[in-house]
Amino acid sequence: MADNSTRTAYTVDSLLAVTVGVFNERGYDGTSMEDLSRAAGISKSSIYHHVRGKEELLRLAVGRALDALFAILDEAEAETGPPVDRLEHVVRRTAEVLLSELPYVTLLLRVRGNTATEQWALERRRDFDHRVAELLRAAVTAGELRADVEPRLATRLLFGMINSIVEWYRPGAKGTDGVADAVVHLAFDGLRAR
Amino acid sequence: MADNSTRTAYTVDSLLAVTVGVFNERGYDGTSMEDLSRAAGISKSSIYHHVRGKEELLRLAVGRALDALFAILDEAEAETGPPVDRLEHVVRRTAEVLLSELPYVTLLLRVRGNTATEQWALERRRDFDHRVAELLRAAVTAGELRADVEPRLATRLLFGMINSIVEWYRPGAKGTDGVADAVVHLAFDGLRAR
Repeated sequence: MADNSTRTAYTVDSLLAVTVGVFNERGYDGTSMEDLSRAAGISKSSIYHHVRGKEELLRLAVGRALDALFAILDEAEAETGPPVDRLEHVVRRTAEVLLSELPYVTLLLRVRGNTATEQWALERRRDFDHRVAELLRAAVTAGELRADVEPRLATRLLFGMINSIVEWYRPGAKGTDGVADAVVHLAFDGLRAR
Repeated sequence: MADNSTRTAYTVDSLLAVTVGVFNERGYDGTSMEDLSRAAGISKSSIYHHVRGKEELLRLAVGRALDALFAILDEAEAETGPPVDRLEHVVRRTAEVLLSELPYVTLLLRVRGNTATEQWALERRRDFDHRVAELLRAAVTAGELRADVEPRLATRLLFGMINSIVEWYRPGAKGTDGVADAVVHLAFDGLRAR
């Protein structure tokens, strides 16, 4: 436990920032309240002052990622215009949210477990994927996207590409500029020169 | 331990097939020789008759995936012709090897640890990625691929898309036909209709 003189004043947000790092490093299952207390430098009872426990911290952390992703679907560019343009906007913004909320989205993508919170997160993630798949299907129907790639498969490959960014992206690393641009280029027009 | 009357006669290959399933389910670190003995239905000493231990089983299993991947680079279509065609062949075959050697490639992609075998696997995987990145760079230089996506980034997104297949592909599942075709279409020409 940290001594009082160096104790940090936490808000729920700053506590979450510490928590998400520990969850990503040790795994949610492998993290104890003791680990969180040590990483934050405050007592467990100080943490319980903010949240009911570990599962609430998980819900808040993945909730932050999910809220940022769902907010994309409410942006004007995602709601009006030809389906292909709306999809392109959603793909670009999904990559951008992944980069700006990297630790939170990383945690979301690693959720696998059986607690109610993990099930809830998996379900909301599937909802988001379905919303994007519907947009993709609308673009195929409109003749804007090729019809020879099955929409469900295309959506999976698209998210596979976007989500893989969490495996290697480090903020400020060299050569990672234009990641969202690259995703959009590759997804919509491919790598071939024209 | 299984009783003698039901004991299965194992070869290294059939023992590996059982092992890779257990490693993928419980994680390499989380698997004991006892777990392997139980899953195979033979005694630990019978396993030691085939291999020196758990780490050798890992080496053989990820080695199988790596050998299949590196063999692609020696195929005639990967060695002659315009770089873009060679790259397209390698991308298609990488997806096909992933599907045909699914449990072995899945294990390879999950290797993270610090044993000598895991370090060796990570290094060989990086070598393979570098070989593909070189081919991609050659195709950009030849003007066959767009120059506005940095080759290293393009390679990462490409492998991100291909490797993500292990997360959802189940052999024989409906709607997974043409996975390798879809990867090639998306990677080289994108989803946009022309």
